[in-house]
Amino acid sequence: MPINPDAVGATGEPVTHAWTSTDAILYALGVGAGAADPFDELEFTTENSNGVEQQVLPTMAVVLGAGGGSAFGSIGSFNPAMLVHGEQAITLHRPIPVQGEVSTVGQIIGIYDKGKGAVVESKAVSTDVATGEPLFTNVSSVFIRGEGGWGGDRGPSGPRNVPADRAPDHEVTYQTRTDQALLYRLSGDRNPLHSDPTFAAMGGFDRPILHGLCTYGFTGRALLHALCDGDPTRFTGLEGRFTSPVMPGEPLTVRMWTGDGEAVFQTVGGDGRVVLDAGRVTFG
Amino acid sequence: MPINPDAVGATGEPVTHAWTSTDAILYALGVGAGAADPFDELEFTTENSNGVEQQVLPTMAVVLGAGGGSAFGSIGSFNPAMLVHGEQAITLHRPIPVQGEVSTVGQIIGIYDKGKGAVVESKAVSTDVATGEPLFTNVSSVFIRGEGGWGGDRGPSGPRNVPADRAPDHEVTYQTRTDQALLYRLSGDRNPLHSDPTFAAMGGFDRPILHGLCTYGFTGRALLHALCDGDPTRFTGLEGRFTSPVMPGEPLTVRMWTGDGEAVFQTVGGDGRVVLDAGRVTFG
Repeated sequence: MPINPDAVGATGEPVTHAWTSTDAILYALGVGAGAADPFDELEFTTENSNGVEQQVLPTMAVVLGAGGGSAFGSIGSFNPAMLVHGEQAITLHRPIPVQGEVSTVGQIIGIYDKGKGAVVESKAVSTDVATGEPLFTNVSSVFIRGEGGWGGDRGPSGPRNVPADRAPDHEVTYQTRTDQALLYRLSGDRNPLHSDPTFAAMGGFDRPILHGLCTYGFTGRALLHALCDGDPTRFTGLEGRFTSPVMPGEPLTVRMWTGDGEAVFQTVGGDGRVVLDAGRVTFG
Repeated sequence: MPINPDAVGATGEPVTHAWTSTDAILYALGVGAGAADPFDELEFTTENSNGVEQQVLPTMAVVLGAGGGSAFGSIGSFNPAMLVHGEQAITLHRPIPVQGEVSTVGQIIGIYDKGKGAVVESKAVSTDVATGEPLFTNVSSVFIRGEGGWGGDRGPSGPRNVPADRAPDHEVTYQTRTDQALLYRLSGDRNPLHSDPTFAAMGGFDRPILHGLCTYGFTGRALLHALCDGDPTRFTGLEGRFTSPVMPGEPLTVRMWTGDGEAVFQTVGGDGRVVLDAGRVTFG
């Protein structure tokens, strides 16, 4: 059964995900918090430092809201090895608590025919089980190679979040480590593409690549510190498009062009190629 | 109430500790596995690499058997800030399973009067709950400043595990990271002495020091790879004495003098001072 373009609107069953203070720290370390200076980000990396209240990095929403994929059952069968992550957007309705539980409902919101493949867009709304209030929303799009060509709508296109024609207003560089993926994967995504050289070779890669969402987390940290003074309560949303695999050990540089309550950004790898493009962050 | 020298022989209540495959990976990353080369120790850092069976670092026994301290209730009250870790020995009765649960019973086996303080020796035997078989034994000694001087037995003294009068037979250097303690502490010991500069300053340290048992874990890895071909089933025991605090970010060099089924070792810091002395490892 090929992909079903009429699945737009289908929702999945609610999926719950609980987390602890330790999970929040593990996520923060996985996206590089404390690596450059172990005392710089104690609010994200420790729970018991004097005068420091533990906080959660906003991009942890992508890990905690990951259950939304259950809506994918409605689009029919496809080869998961043909799927690549295209875009990821998060909206923070309120700061993520240090520990808690969310219930996430996913919905397919768009299926587009790109000829060589299909783009499937899904939205997952995560509600705080303790309060019943929405905590964050993830919107992601994936590209599934080989599933296009049914003559359907190509979907929206054209440039978005284009940097202004000037030098970046801010630029932050973080060094990833060669073993970065070994730590990041403990936050949930155990795909061996990111850790096992044998598996990566079968996928056509010289060696395991970094999780796109790890790059996303490094990027979110850079934006949080450069634009929100490190305060997660000011960080309200992030979107971007994955354009190139990142190798663990590469430096990541986030270039930011600020506007009113928002900034456009690009993240580039060690050789200057753009790895996360068409980025936009909103903040208060 | 001062320390009670008659508490020798007192036992604590059994304490259970369960662990998962993820805990074993987190411990391995915390003691530096994969840091130099992310593909070198996949058996300790991943659970799903092709042709690689997950294994557990033998020194994880110190984390899993940590509940044995309940016997300390019998020695009377003392100021925990006056306690420093002196020695740690582990005996592996069989390899540690990737996941499981142990029940640990601690016993006070020695209390010695060193004048300026007391040395308290305890032994903790951990039994595999699933099989009822002993899995590992921890013996540790702590020095409690200010609790000596009752005219008691000074206990055994004199040099032990003295290196042979020749250059080491093997030498392995591992680099610790400045944020090493932030990761290691997720395996259980959340003492802010290892993470919070404010707390460390109150203890008289310029900055947070590395967990002694993290140094112990790095040392165990070096010995395992140099002497047991990385095979935990061959690693049967380890003992050593903590002689100097280690700063996160220091390189650790383990010098080994091999004998028949055992080796004497010392671990030295970046400036050559001995940080783990009178070491002995046994292997098959």
